[in-house]
Parts: sequence; C-alpha cells; structure tokens
Amino acid sequence: MLDMTTTGAGLNGFRILGTGRYLPQNKVTSAQIDQRLNWPEGTVAARFGLTSRHVAGAGESTSEMAAAAARDALQAAGREASDLDLIIGGCGVMEQAIPSTAVLVQDRLGLGRSGIAAFDVNATCLGFVQAMDVAAMYIAMGRARHVLVFASDIASVGLDWNVPDTACIFGDGAAAVVLGIGEAGILASRMETYGEGRGACVLAGGGTGYASLPPAAQASALYFQMDGPQAWRHAARRLPRFTARLLDSAGVEMSDIACIIPHQASGGALDHGLARLGLPAEKVVRTYTECGNQIASSIPNALHHAVAAGRLQRGDLALLIGTSAGLSIGGMVVRY
Amino acid sequence: MLDMTTTGAGLNGFRILGTGRYLPQNKVTSAQIDQRLNWPEGTVAARFGLTSRHVAGAGESTSEMAAAAARDALQAAGREASDLDLIIGGCGVMEQAIPSTAVLVQDRLGLGRSGIAAFDVNATCLGFVQAMDVAAMYIAMGRARHVLVFASDIASVGLDWNVPDTACIFGDGAAAVVLGIGEAGILASRMETYGEGRGACVLAGGGTGYASLPPAAQASALYFQMDGPQAWRHAARRLPRFTARLLDSAGVEMSDIACIIPHQASGGALDHGLARLGLPAEKVVRTYTECGNQIASSIPNALHHAVAAGRLQRGDLALLIGTSAGLSIGGMVVRY
Repeated sequence: MLDMTTTGAGLNGFRILGTGRYLPQNKVTSAQIDQRLNWPEGTVAARFGLTSRHVAGAGESTSEMAAAAARDALQAAGREASDLDLIIGGCGVMEQAIPSTAVLVQDRLGLGRSGIAAFDVNATCLGFVQAMDVAAMYIAMGRARHVLVFASDIASVGLDWNVPDTACIFGDGAAAVVLGIGEAGILASRMETYGEGRGACVLAGGGTGYASLPPAAQASALYFQMDGPQAWRHAARRLPRFTARLLDSAGVEMSDIACIIPHQASGGALDHGLARLGLPAEKVVRTYTECGNQIASSIPNALHHAVAAGRLQRGDLALLIGTSAGLSIGGMVVRY
Repeated sequence: MLDMTTTGAGLNGFRILGTGRYLPQNKVTSAQIDQRLNWPEGTVAARFGLTSRHVAGAGESTSEMAAAAARDALQAAGREASDLDLIIGGCGVMEQAIPSTAVLVQDRLGLGRSGIAAFDVNATCLGFVQAMDVAAMYIAMGRARHVLVFASDIASVGLDWNVPDTACIFGDGAAAVVLGIGEAGILASRMETYGEGRGACVLAGGGTGYASLPPAAQASALYFQMDGPQAWRHAARRLPRFTARLLDSAGVEMSDIACIIPHQASGGALDHGLARLGLPAEKVVRTYTECGNQIASSIPNALHHAVAAGRLQRGDLALLIGTSAGLSIGGMVVRY
C-alpha cells in the first residue's frame, strides 16, 4: 500500500490559495422526498439524517458546475484563469467518456486556446483528494505554479428510487481549489485500496463493459448500486489503523488537528464511523445535513465550508479523510 | 500550459523495469472488413493503411486484458505483483463508471486484500503517457518503489460501422509497464490542451451528461465520433512547435533519439504527420499496421514492441509523442 508520507522537502512549498463551490439552484427537501415515496412526513430526515439536497437541472452539467466552482475558487485566490498551469478533474463520474471533464472545464473557463494542460484523476469519492495529491507534486517539484483541482458530481442521474436507502442520501454539486506556491503543504498523505470490495459500490454502465452485459442487466447498469453494510464492514475495520498511521506519518496527534473534513458518506457513517475513530465531534465539518453525499465533491465542499465559516484558519491543520468505491481509504493532513 | 521539464533531480531515479502487452485472440483482417462492408477486397488496407486489428471477445474485458499485460510486464521486470506500491490505470475509456479500472485490475492480480493504492488517470489517447508521468513523480519523490502503469482499451464496442472512416482504423488491446528505482528517467515531459477542439473527438455517453441528451441523441452517444480533419488541423499546426520545445527542454536533438514511439492515430497521421515533423521514418515504431489505433494502449504497445524487437536498448532515449481527444498534445523524452 502506498504510504505517501512526505519527508524533508516533500509536499511542501504550496498552499491552498482559494476554495470555491457551486450548488444547484433546485434544493429538494427531505419532506418532498417523503411525498414522492408516499412516506409519512419526517421519515427521510429521521431515517437518513439529512434535511435537503441539491439537484442539478438545465445549465448545471458536470462541467458547468465545475466551471462555476472554479471561478469562485479563482476569485478567492485572487488569480485569473489564465494564471493556471494545470487543471485536474477529480469527479466521481465523468460528464462523458471522451474527452475528460477537465478539458470541458478548461474550455468553459475561456482557456480553450491556452494550451493549459488538463486531465482527470479517477478514484470515485476520493477523486478530489487523489487529484490534489497529484497537483501538489507538480508544484512541489517545480513543474507548475498554479493548479486548479475540482470535483463535480451529478448523483441524481444515477439513482434508483426503488432502493430508497441509497437514493435518499445523495446530492449534486461541485467544489474546487486553486493551489499555488506558498509556505504550507501536505504533512502526510495515504491511500489504501482493497479490490476485494469492488462489488460493494458499483455503477456498471458508462464504460467498455456495458456492451457485454445481458440486456436485462443493461438497464440497471445505469444506476448506482451500493451494498452499504458491505462497504461499511470493509471500511470500519480498517479505518482506525489507517487514521493512526496517517497521523503518525504526519508526526501529529489528533489534538493538533483544527478541522476534520470527512467524506460525507451518510448520516450513519458520520455519526458512528467518526465516533469509532475517536474523532472529536466538534472538529468535524458536516455538509451532509443540507447537501447529502456529493460523491467526490463532498470533501472539497466541506473544505470550502470550513474556510468560509472561519473554522479553518491560515496555519491550521486539516485532516481530509474518506472512503470510496473500490474499496479505497484515503486521507491527508494538510496545513491550510 | 504545463512545461513539465525536469530540472536537476527532477524525474530521475526511476527506470522502466519491464514492459508487457496483451492482444485479443481474435484477429480481424482488413479483407474481412472489406467483406463486411461489401467493398472490393483490398480497399480497407489501401485506404486506411492497416492489414488487421484485434477484437476483444469473451474473457477479454478491459480489466482482464490489462491484468494479462500487467503479468507480462511484471515477469519482464522480474517482480511479483505484491512488490507493487501503486497501480495507475491510463485507459482511454473505463470498464465501468464505478469503481476505477485500476481497482478491478488490482483485484484480478490477486491483490484485493493488499491495500496497494489504485486509481485512474484519464487523458484519452494520452492516458498512459500522463499516468506514467504521475507514476514517475511518486518514485522520484521517494513515495513509491514499484508502480504498475497500464492502458487497456476496447474500441470495438464504440464503433459506428455507418462511418467506416472511423470504424476501420481502431483495434483492441492492452499494454503495461512496471517502473522501479533505477538510473534512468524522464528528461522532459510536456502536455498542452486546447479545449476549443473538444468537439473533434467525442464519446458523449458513459457519463452524467447522457441522461440529459435527447432520446434521439442517446443511441449515437454510445458511439465514438471523430471529425478527423478537424482533429488533424488542431494537431498539425501545433505539433512542430510542441516537439521542438519538448526536445529543447530535454536538452537533446532528434539525432539523439533512438526510437520514436508515436500514438498510432491513423495511417495518414503516421505518414504525413511524422513527415511534417521531420521525424526520421526509420526510427518510428509502428504497430498500427497490424493493431490499428488502440487508443491509450497504442503508445505502451509500441513501446513494448520496440523493447521486444531490440530496437530500444538500455540507455537509449525514446520519444513518446501523441495527440488525444481534447484536443491535447503530449510527449516525453525517456531514457530506457
């Protein structure tokens, strides 16, 4: 497994210059979902722990939301789009198979003739974290000065409403960061992948395997399928050791961390999972209640929320941590 | 644009330990395509410059082919799968939307409980080159010792036979490299993206945008659509300057390059494009004639071919160069 510990001059020399986000106009309350499912009002909120989620509509494609979040992050960073050297997309699911979502966003930012390099990193719900790890290396090695990293996801197009346990908890949205040269960095970064859990979270369509599926399976292949308990078992038994090793690699204690920014997987994961890890609840940033699980956009959205709310100050340490389909566990300790 | 020049201790400290590939059992000749299209025998070969291509069948999914190529590369490298620290997939199109193809390959290599990190990089036909660039950084920074990089593509499932100009030139296959610590490296690496050309090569299905397409467009969205002349215009006018800058960054002349390993885009691109660049034909490695355009697998397949044929020897310099949907131009000068 990759112990992406930074040593010496590792992933220092950069900092998060600005963060941004975009939430779709249409906010769907859990009461509206109750009505849709013919459930007594209050059921969805009580059972799944969220009051609303945003749902993308016309003019809110994956790349349009990403470009809006990117503009927000560039403004916060005090930079122009043309200052960028590199654009890395970390979406959970692409907008289309060819070309990459980063290319679409480059063009939407008015950079279509710029030559600014653009590509995607795919690690499902950990896509943003992994893309940021790669982006940091380009800056740390002196190969780029400004890098845009974004995640944008439209979960709503892949939800099977015959399976409310999964469909009720997801939301759409995008978030982005602009990284630049600075006196901060990643103290440690770690990713572990356990492919034995590949069947726990699946969107079987969207790739070269689709054509070889039996016709009956093709329809359901367009929906995200999750075996929540299985995913949870894989994650739960490995998360404590993972977190301990990550903090140990960073040379810090939990008490040194100002903000914990977890993937907003579900209400249960946020409540029970974090409790199991012994994470102090008051440090945990939670966007799930109003935004749901936004796939790869969850972590950067929560990061933006922490910055905007003043909970993460310059010089503070943040712990980004999450799980993703695969099953993978990933995280990093970042100085903001 | 990202001028990924390595300076000083940049992307040195690694080398390609081994290469491997997998070609599907079913080899379809151009004469067979002539029959299928009711064309006079010899037409496809004469018009498109290839004699055959391989077409994946049962047991040859994207991840199965990738795993076979990976085993071949591991054997050539003299390493076990369990020696890996990291697996990066660089396929043009994923096997399925969730999870990443790298995860599927990890599990197929018997590493499902290993924790070895796995994720994908997506840059369409340049996916392998970009994944190798990222992999090299992990080794150069001391964050990984052995990295598997693969590309595997099944073009055949996305071809529209009503458009023979596109359908005739693609083939399926996979290739992989194992990178490890060593006394070689990337002298220079460069990527330029021009999103204004995003419409030249498109596979509109397979992502979050599919659901918002009009029903009539959804059927064709499952096919790869290419405006060859437009793609060629974007690439042709920028390739000479790109290549000059790449070689200049590497501090080498074309005469220092032992092997030119281009993306096998088409017969025309290989003939006219390389001539326009002034690339000496005898140094160009060509797999197109028997394998067609294998999307992201073309460059690593040609690299493997060059090594296997003894055309690329230890210490030699190779120029990897290509274009991809986006439109992007990418390349690197690698010491083997």
